[in-house]
Amino acid sequence: MMRQKLLSEGAKELSYEIREIVKKAEVIQKLGQTIYWENIGDPVQKNNEVPEWMKDILKDLLSKNETYSYCHSKGVLNTRKFLAEKTNALGGVQISPDDILFFNGLGDAIAKVYQYLVPTSRIIGPSPAYSTHSSAEAAHAYHDPITYKLDPDNHWYPDLDDLYNKVKYNPTIVGILIINPDNPTGMVYPKKTLERIVEIAREFNLFLLSDEIYINITYNGVKTFALAEVIGDVPGLAMKGISKEFPWPGARCGWVEYYNRDKEPEFNRFCIALDNAKMIEVCSTKLPQLAIPLIMTHPNFIKYREEVNCKIGRRSKIITGYLSEIPELRFNETFGAFYNTIIFKEGTLNPHQKLKINNPAIEEIVENWVNNPNMALDKRFVYYLLAATGICVVPISSFCSELKGFRITLLEENEDLLHNIFSRLRESIKEYLKS
Amino acid sequence: MMRQKLLSEGAKELSYEIREIVKKAEVIQKLGQTIYWENIGDPVQKNNEVPEWMKDILKDLLSKNETYSYCHSKGVLNTRKFLAEKTNALGGVQISPDDILFFNGLGDAIAKVYQYLVPTSRIIGPSPAYSTHSSAEAAHAYHDPITYKLDPDNHWYPDLDDLYNKVKYNPTIVGILIINPDNPTGMVYPKKTLERIVEIAREFNLFLLSDEIYINITYNGVKTFALAEVIGDVPGLAMKGISKEFPWPGARCGWVEYYNRDKEPEFNRFCIALDNAKMIEVCSTKLPQLAIPLIMTHPNFIKYREEVNCKIGRRSKIITGYLSEIPELRFNETFGAFYNTIIFKEGTLNPHQKLKINNPAIEEIVENWVNNPNMALDKRFVYYLLAATGICVVPISSFCSELKGFRITLLEENEDLLHNIFSRLRESIKEYLKS
Amino acid sequence: MMRQKLLSEGAKELSYEIREIVKKAEVIQKLGQTIYWENIGDPVQKNNEVPEWMKDILKDLLSKNETYSYCHSKGVLNTRKFLAEKTNALGGVQISPDDILFFNGLGDAIAKVYQYLVPTSRIIGPSPAYSTHSSAEAAHAYHDPITYKLDPDNHWYPDLDDLYNKVKYNPTIVGILIINPDNPTGMVYPKKTLERIVEIAREFNLFLLSDEIYINITYNGVKTFALAEVIGDVPGLAMKGISKEFPWPGARCGWVEYYNRDKEPEFNRFCIALDNAKMIEVCSTKLPQLAIPLIMTHPNFIKYREEVNCKIGRRSKIITGYLSEIPELRFNETFGAFYNTIIFKEGTLNPHQKLKINNPAIEEIVENWVNNPNMALDKRFVYYLLAATGICVVPISSFCSELKGFRITLLEENEDLLHNIFSRLRESIKEYLKS
Amino acid sequence: MMRQKLLSEGAKELSYEIREIVKKAEVIQKLGQTIYWENIGDPVQKNNEVPEWMKDILKDLLSKNETYSYCHSKGVLNTRKFLAEKTNALGGVQISPDDILFFNGLGDAIAKVYQYLVPTSRIIGPSPAYSTHSSAEAAHAYHDPITYKLDPDNHWYPDLDDLYNKVKYNPTIVGILIINPDNPTGMVYPKKTLERIVEIAREFNLFLLSDEIYINITYNGVKTFALAEVIGDVPGLAMKGISKEFPWPGARCGWVEYYNRDKEPEFNRFCIALDNAKMIEVCSTKLPQLAIPLIMTHPNFIKYREEVNCKIGRRSKIITGYLSEIPELRFNETFGAFYNTIIFKEGTLNPHQKLKINNPAIEEIVENWVNNPNMALDKRFVYYLLAATGICVVPISSFCSELKGFRITLLEENEDLLHNIFSRLRESIKEYLKS
Repeated sequence: MMRQKLLSEGAKELSYEIREIVKKAEVIQKLGQTIYWENIGDPVQKNNEVPEWMKDILKDLLSKNETYSYCHSKGVLNTRKFLAEKTNALGGVQISPDDILFFNGLGDAIAKVYQYLVPTSRIIGPSPAYSTHSSAEAAHAYHDPITYKLDPDNHWYPDLDDLYNKVKYNPTIVGILIINPDNPTGMVYPKKTLERIVEIAREFNLFLLSDEIYINITYNGVKTFALAEVIGDVPGLAMKGISKEFPWPGARCGWVEYYNRDKEPEFNRFCIALDNAKMIEVCSTKLPQLAIPLIMTHPNFIKYREEVNCKIGRRSKIITGYLSEIPELRFNETFGAFYNTIIFKEGTLNPHQKLKINNPAIEEIVENWVNNPNMALDKRFVYYLLAATGICVVPISSFCSELKGFRITLLEENEDLLHNIFSRLRESIKEYLKS
Repeated sequence: MMRQKLLSEGAKELSYEIREIVKKAEVIQKLGQTIYWENIGDPVQKNNEVPEWMKDILKDLLSKNETYSYCHSKGVLNTRKFLAEKTNALGGVQISPDDILFFNGLGDAIAKVYQYLVPTSRIIGPSPAYSTHSSAEAAHAYHDPITYKLDPDNHWYPDLDDLYNKVKYNPTIVGILIINPDNPTGMVYPKKTLERIVEIAREFNLFLLSDEIYINITYNGVKTFALAEVIGDVPGLAMKGISKEFPWPGARCGWVEYYNRDKEPEFNRFCIALDNAKMIEVCSTKLPQLAIPLIMTHPNFIKYREEVNCKIGRRSKIITGYLSEIPELRFNETFGAFYNTIIFKEGTLNPHQKLKINNPAIEEIVENWVNNPNMALDKRFVYYLLAATGICVVPISSFCSELKGFRITLLEENEDLLHNIFSRLRESIKEYLKS
Repeated sequence: MMRQKLLSEGAKELSYEIREIVKKAEVIQKLGQTIYWENIGDPVQKNNEVPEWMKDILKDLLSKNETYSYCHSKGVLNTRKFLAEKTNALGGVQISPDDILFFNGLGDAIAKVYQYLVPTSRIIGPSPAYSTHSSAEAAHAYHDPITYKLDPDNHWYPDLDDLYNKVKYNPTIVGILIINPDNPTGMVYPKKTLERIVEIAREFNLFLLSDEIYINITYNGVKTFALAEVIGDVPGLAMKGISKEFPWPGARCGWVEYYNRDKEPEFNRFCIALDNAKMIEVCSTKLPQLAIPLIMTHPNFIKYREEVNCKIGRRSKIITGYLSEIPELRFNETFGAFYNTIIFKEGTLNPHQKLKINNPAIEEIVENWVNNPNMALDKRFVYYLLAATGICVVPISSFCSELKGFRITLLEENEDLLHNIFSRLRESIKEYLKS
Repeated sequence: MMRQKLLSEGAKELSYEIREIVKKAEVIQKLGQTIYWENIGDPVQKNNEVPEWMKDILKDLLSKNETYSYCHSKGVLNTRKFLAEKTNALGGVQISPDDILFFNGLGDAIAKVYQYLVPTSRIIGPSPAYSTHSSAEAAHAYHDPITYKLDPDNHWYPDLDDLYNKVKYNPTIVGILIINPDNPTGMVYPKKTLERIVEIAREFNLFLLSDEIYINITYNGVKTFALAEVIGDVPGLAMKGISKEFPWPGARCGWVEYYNRDKEPEFNRFCIALDNAKMIEVCSTKLPQLAIPLIMTHPNFIKYREEVNCKIGRRSKIITGYLSEIPELRFNETFGAFYNTIIFKEGTLNPHQKLKINNPAIEEIVENWVNNPNMALDKRFVYYLLAATGICVVPISSFCSELKGFRITLLEENEDLLHNIFSRLRESIKEYLKS
């Protein structure tokens, strides 16, 4: 026995349920079923080719000795200048390079932001929730995450009354998290919505936290409004990165922009604490930081992003074609990021529904998994879908939501396969609901 | 005013005093003084060339699309297999790839290890202390770090009586930190010392935490004993990385090895919490992980390390030649890492000593800096040295130590310059002490 | 300097602003002004004679040696039996002597209830708030108290929508405090109100905390409904005592009744923690416990209470006569306890109003006190009233309320003096508002 | 299920093991065995008659109406003046009435002192420990109590080396608890010992906490040195009361004296926090406070105490006669309080020893109780002693001690019965050890 207990109280909140389905899929895979990984938001794994000119930029950088050393603890100065100018060019809140802090990906940024927030001060975030935020927030507070509802009957836009009431009546809330475009719903916040959220923050002296990792991934005519454009004089943090955009998730490179830290001393102290927390780690990953201005100013970059976004948009339409007309589903067409969250209407799921599974070994295993009276009904569906078709999606009950449904991705580059997967998904839903 | 306070109590402990000297040096530099950066442990900045064959391995990896995607949340499986085998080949404690967790550099690893330890359970570490550990430990506990003494009169080896008494009489201590080879002293722990520390951990049911970032940086006939070789059945964590060894500090790539997690359920839960904390960030930097087995098994690697170590060893001897005979200093020859910590004997420093500074503008600024009756006497010396010669070293009082002295590095690749710097340093010490 | 800091974070919340006025009154008194202490809820100080037959019972008890020893840590068994039967006779929730725990007055009970509640679980209580509850709750949570509004435009009844919303949207709330009859408003909760509060507790799995120290102090036709009568199967604590009823505040004797602890394991553990907390103090005051059944079953007791209540009721009518018709006041007639809280309508107070003060020394002091731009406007009025007339009342802003007004008591036994005080109070209000 | 968890982390530390034996004794009693209650420190229960003149003083006070009202929140001013003068007359540290705060017995004082100490600052206290202190200290810190050893081989005096080392090497310790005369050992600290403890407090910037509830209960030529006499300029709290001295434990009346609060601002803030904590409870028990000067200055008081002490001293000698010569025991004659702690030498107890029990029903129950391989060996002895003889004593392992033994009391007023009990105890020890 250890001399004293080791684990902090927050450690028990560290769950990432959306990874569990991967373990299940691996079991099914070993039994001979091909798996279609519609569960993970990694474009590279879904065959989004990193363009050669990008690779060349990185190789050039690796030829230089200086690329290998530490950089400034806040990040490469030149890159911070470049990014500050980009934000300033939006014409909203203005920042300097000192208002930017680089992290080893947004996961690192998120972890530190919540870690240095006092446990009794809470950030309210959207539900369905993205686990990296909700787990880190819960771990910092030793309690369940606090969430506002995204409304599947209104394009997944935030339920602003719910948000307002929760903020008004819960004095522990000090900040509002926006994920825009949103994971897992693919929703892009209208400007009016953002302005109302800023207004709420102003009324109750909160700060805003905006995860904009998908900011440049929109399509079919929609653009994202950045927090910088609407925040006015309210304190805020915007989180940005290159994982989804270049895409280079394996680089672990993201950054936080501090807005209006000069307006509020306690908020400024919080920003300084983040700087200090990074300083004791020396610095963040240097190679991707050096690459950012080179890639983003490359003549091919804008066109490249347009093409990729366009393809995602086309896939969004295809999927809409397959799933929007099923009467038992609450379906919303997406316009940003590369996920969609589809909800089963209430009363359509029950614990006796099934799909036909041809492989008896797989059938036996799945029946074992679902043989649990407390199992969420969407998880039950997801397991049957996986077992019968190999299509791997994530149940929505794993996203701190009381809704029942599943998240798909819009990343399959092979359109024939895409048609195939989503027509099978549609048939499986029908079969399951009728069974 | 924010609605509630934001900062966690731990945030105030996040200081990294050893970076302060950089700001001072930049001021002096602007006034025309050339600076000799003997303060930072980055071999690349000190002209250690990254070999071409290493660069080629990395460029090859960057040609492959798969390099850009996320990897397993614990790290690339193949690399973890490779590292587990290396550890197992030492013949001590045996581990599996599951006992390895990759981080974005050791700074990230250190931050998470202390973050998920309950605040009332403490890790005792060496003094002089390396700030990344001592600040993170203090931040987790909201209190000053707890330290055991390294003894400058005994090769900087740990004062084992001090360690034993502090562990015995302070029941909040649950673990012992070893940095081996040590930063900032350049000390390499003898096997007997390590064995005694393991014994203490066993007696009081502690776990061991061994920072082995410099494990392969030893010279002049000395080798490091890894924790894995001496730990027996006591639970422990070893921290390793490539920052100093390839060297590639800008990569942010390090890992933790869990030892004997099967022997102690609470320790195992702690390891699982670390795995979970990383999982909610998805994963760590992938490119360097892919490179590790390729570089470490490359035919040139061992010879390359030997040559670099040999050069550090030669520089250690040169520095010994300059500084070991000054009677007012407590000097120890180093055998590992690339630092040395030199202590002024008690009573040799006073607040009236000075160095002659030719530039009057610089002189004025320095006199302003030292015009503070609470200033540590070694900081005073360091400021004068910087102002008079441009040699930038770090005062030892910034390392949670009551001793007065300074840390130098052994990284200057240009031997003429090295001779020049250390002869000037010797003369400056003499001038200062006599003044 | 102490080795480490001593004070717990909660200590800073321990304020009891309603005592501050006493210090001010003592200053004025020394300058020659007679003080009319309308600020304190101690019937004995206001000449409520303790009846001789009660005194005789106590003297008899003091003749017995056994009276002096410790009693059972939960309280004298026979007395707990007597009180359990009294509660059971109400026909609501049923309890056993084991469901009663004696304390050294309700202040002790209140302190322990909040102390053993985890800091992140909160009790919402009424505003205007009674400081003993609100300070103890704040100290346990290290944050401002959380309150629901009592509505001066609706007989000071609780604003049930405000309560419902705050409970619904703030998941940290685990209990609702009721003070019934209420201090400082003199309000007695209607049965329907209590039932609605029980319903809210049931909906959100809260427990109820009911301070019933004034339960038998009602008049002019109103009776209190005890929590026991309405609670059904919801967990709850009722707090009762003899301070106001015998009256014997100096005895420090009160008790808590546990309701439905068998229905909810976590609530039961909480009750056991209270038992244990008392056990390590051995027990509470014994003499008053021994006296309780003897006094309460004495043939004179009921009539005695009726007479005293009747007199309070008559005084309530007299005060109503003086103050209910002033158009700038929000006035409610009282039916329980012995306080009334009178609110100035919005816009009627300003920082330039005054009362004529004859004594120049007193005038100077008061002008000094009110020479503070942040001073609450009701405090300003209260200071002028004290200085000009010697009438000492408590400002309502000292009761965690945003309303402006003052609390008076209904305890003055001398009716001529009562008329005198309240006619002067009426005239002073008019003079102040017009000035 | 409650909405959130209720219990604070400290609640689990609230155990008072020394009460457990009472439950066991009640079981045995019901089976027909007469119980000799040698477990409880209540002189009144053991037939110490409260003198008639004391009773008369109290009855007189109860005739006055004013006795029933609240008193000043710090306690009756006149009584505090009286007590301050008594302390000042010792010629040591000088205090004013403001340096005294009354509580509802020392249990209340102890609870509040630890409650308002920050959890990470610890008080080290003696072992064997008196549970009221050790449980409250543990509850405040959420961890096991921290203790220094009292040495049974050196008159139960504190092991000063152990104390010094624990203080020196554990920076969380901010105060030292002294219980003098001590419960449960009956030890009276020599002046030199107290002076050394003060010296340690001064060296490490600690405050002293001295529980002097038994200060006037010494005998056979020994007197207690008060903390006030030796503390010099070190901050300290002395805890005093009337429970054991009048004796009137049922009154719940004790007080704390603050020493040198003017010398140390953080300590002064701590004292103010205690004042505030009491103020929100309004005040402590008034009747005993009013009685203190009347009783203590009564012409009979000193003689009365001398006679009672003398009788305790005689009983101490008688018990010494019975138990000091048993070679398997470590026995110390007592000189203060009314307990003795007798230790079994190591190796003398084993889990197979027994006493002959005549009543088969009792025998069966006891064998059931001791049928637990983890049972402390002294508890086993105590259960057998209780079952075989009805003598009820408390095992020393219940006092946070690793020693094995039992605590007896020196309170039996009937000397024949005393001889009888202790001769049976001696024979039972011999029988048990030989069995």
